[in-house]
Amino acid sequence: MSGNLEFPMNGGDGANSYSKNSRYQGEAINVVKEMIIEAIAKKFDISLSFSSNTIRIADLGCSVGPNTFNAMKSIVEAIEWKYHSKNLTTETPEFQLFFNDHASNDFNTLFTTLPPDRQYFAAGVPGSFYGRLFPKSSIHLMYSSFALQWLSKVPEELLDNGSLAWNKGKIHYTIASKEITNVYAAQFAKDMDAFFNARADEIIVGGMMILIMPGLADGVQYSQDPGRPFFYAFNQSLLDMVKLGMINEDEVDSFNLPLYTTSPKEMTKVVERNGCFSIERMEVSDTRPKNDGPTNVPAILTHFRVGWEGIFTKHFGSKIFEELFERTLNKSAEISSMLESSCGKGTQLFLVLKRK
Amino acid sequence: MSGNLEFPMNGGDGANSYSKNSRYQGEAINVVKEMIIEAIAKKFDISLSFSSNTIRIADLGCSVGPNTFNAMKSIVEAIEWKYHSKNLTTETPEFQLFFNDHASNDFNTLFTTLPPDRQYFAAGVPGSFYGRLFPKSSIHLMYSSFALQWLSKVPEELLDNGSLAWNKGKIHYTIASKEITNVYAAQFAKDMDAFFNARADEIIVGGMMILIMPGLADGVQYSQDPGRPFFYAFNQSLLDMVKLGMINEDEVDSFNLPLYTTSPKEMTKVVERNGCFSIERMEVSDTRPKNDGPTNVPAILTHFRVGWEGIFTKHFGSKIFEELFERTLNKSAEISSMLESSCGKGTQLFLVLKRK
Repeated sequence: MSGNLEFPMNGGDGANSYSKNSRYQGEAINVVKEMIIEAIAKKFDISLSFSSNTIRIADLGCSVGPNTFNAMKSIVEAIEWKYHSKNLTTETPEFQLFFNDHASNDFNTLFTTLPPDRQYFAAGVPGSFYGRLFPKSSIHLMYSSFALQWLSKVPEELLDNGSLAWNKGKIHYTIASKEITNVYAAQFAKDMDAFFNARADEIIVGGMMILIMPGLADGVQYSQDPGRPFFYAFNQSLLDMVKLGMINEDEVDSFNLPLYTTSPKEMTKVVERNGCFSIERMEVSDTRPKNDGPTNVPAILTHFRVGWEGIFTKHFGSKIFEELFERTLNKSAEISSMLESSCGKGTQLFLVLKRK
Repeated sequence: MSGNLEFPMNGGDGANSYSKNSRYQGEAINVVKEMIIEAIAKKFDISLSFSSNTIRIADLGCSVGPNTFNAMKSIVEAIEWKYHSKNLTTETPEFQLFFNDHASNDFNTLFTTLPPDRQYFAAGVPGSFYGRLFPKSSIHLMYSSFALQWLSKVPEELLDNGSLAWNKGKIHYTIASKEITNVYAAQFAKDMDAFFNARADEIIVGGMMILIMPGLADGVQYSQDPGRPFFYAFNQSLLDMVKLGMINEDEVDSFNLPLYTTSPKEMTKVVERNGCFSIERMEVSDTRPKNDGPTNVPAILTHFRVGWEGIFTKHFGSKIFEELFERTLNKSAEISSMLESSCGKGTQLFLVLKRK
């Protein structure tokens, strides 16, 4: 149904799997758990379910758990609590939950690890969320956590050596020129418009969307992105390997990570231009643990590995990744010092929308 | 959600996979394709979709395709044809298709091989169809092909050496005593009642169910089941291996294939006792290709392998299966001669029900 890029998280439950290395996303979810509960308490319209007595919820870009299961549990419990607090005479609704990700996601692991005590009917939905996934007006609440930073594709200009935006020798806009950043931003705007159009079809009028994604506070430069030191280190390792003849220069020139960090101002513009949703809450917050001592760079790198190994391997082949990762690990001290000098103001955008 | 037995078909697309060896089910589907189209033309109430403009269809026990995709295509096209033939002014409905099987089914293969040109939204639903899988009154049409012959479990009496129904040395009722058959039949009746209760909750009033399963014409003895020569040959191979010390006798005593073949009379009784569905059509038919020369026993054995390897391997371990299968293949001539003397009247039950 979608021709979009697919870079699944590492599947299974081995040492480098997503299910064993999703602690950072997990922490982010704990930080926002209260925000989710509050958003549902204040904004979710339970009367939407009265006609069918069913509430349908989707997690877009769910990967393989356990984060998706924890988030879904919080959402279901918050809705149930709202039901009970109203002392309604109607039956408590039944919940149907749709776990969405690319068809190449490890749904086998997702399905065999579903919580046995879950209070909902579960379904998996394969496909890109930049296209339609569900019938019209069939979903009451959509959720997505740390998935919308993935663009639908690498913008073509980045690969065109006749273009000002040719991203030679660089793998990401945070370590490149303003032209490159503009190209990434334009792709993001286009992707988000496609995303909101698809969701506008699928979400019942009055229904809700909770989106969590990397975010920078307004006015913070993209060069201050806390991900930048990591992109930089991977990039340097690749260039070192080019010098040593382990990788061709062309291969680095033609590689770009299709990841983008947005800001409240930019998201507001995208939502308003689309016109189908009202913004109920938007907030940038710092998800890094407080008083947690110095940043554990190797742990973060291992975390990035889970999300990025697929895309690196697809481009460079499976043989080079171990070497690339080791070399990047060896740059941990450098990354650490770059992180200290970055402003690091806000790494997460929390967004609550309503279907108008 | 279910504690029932799970014996997935062989996954992937290798030489012994279900996706490469489902020709016999495929032929059965061709035989019934016209029956499905006719059933929808005559019995499916398209007005059921007018309120939401969505038609929800489920395939219970779908395995990994391609049969499920072909069947779903026929069903969707038959409903669309009915819509268009009525010259309705309403929009053509959208279709949401739920592919159900045990959580251990290879959903990864199912999802990555979904037809790219499909005219429906696809979802996978893990879990046993002997329990609830969907919200109340949410499905318009349920379909199941060659899945309901699997009982939810091996009845305990078969394993109890103090019981008259202890199935010592035998792996199936078709080669055992009447007591054993009664125990299988009782389990089937119980399972089907659970099945119909769950479906009665899930299917919209007026909605439809099309069930295809192994079936014997009324009055045909279970010893005439065309599967019997195959059960017999596998059983003999196991006993030969016991004699040679390759398997313990106990292991054979404690193994029973939880497969059951019903009849129109028996199904009528089960449906009527349950009371939630009306029988719109019930028919036993012979699915074996006409004028196809002598039965190709090795091909049928390879077909059975796909469905049975999992359950044999789970009980006896993975090492013995190749030997067991080779030994059974060597009995092909014996199987062939047993098949000729079986009456073979009807091997498939086709059933159309409506939710009252």
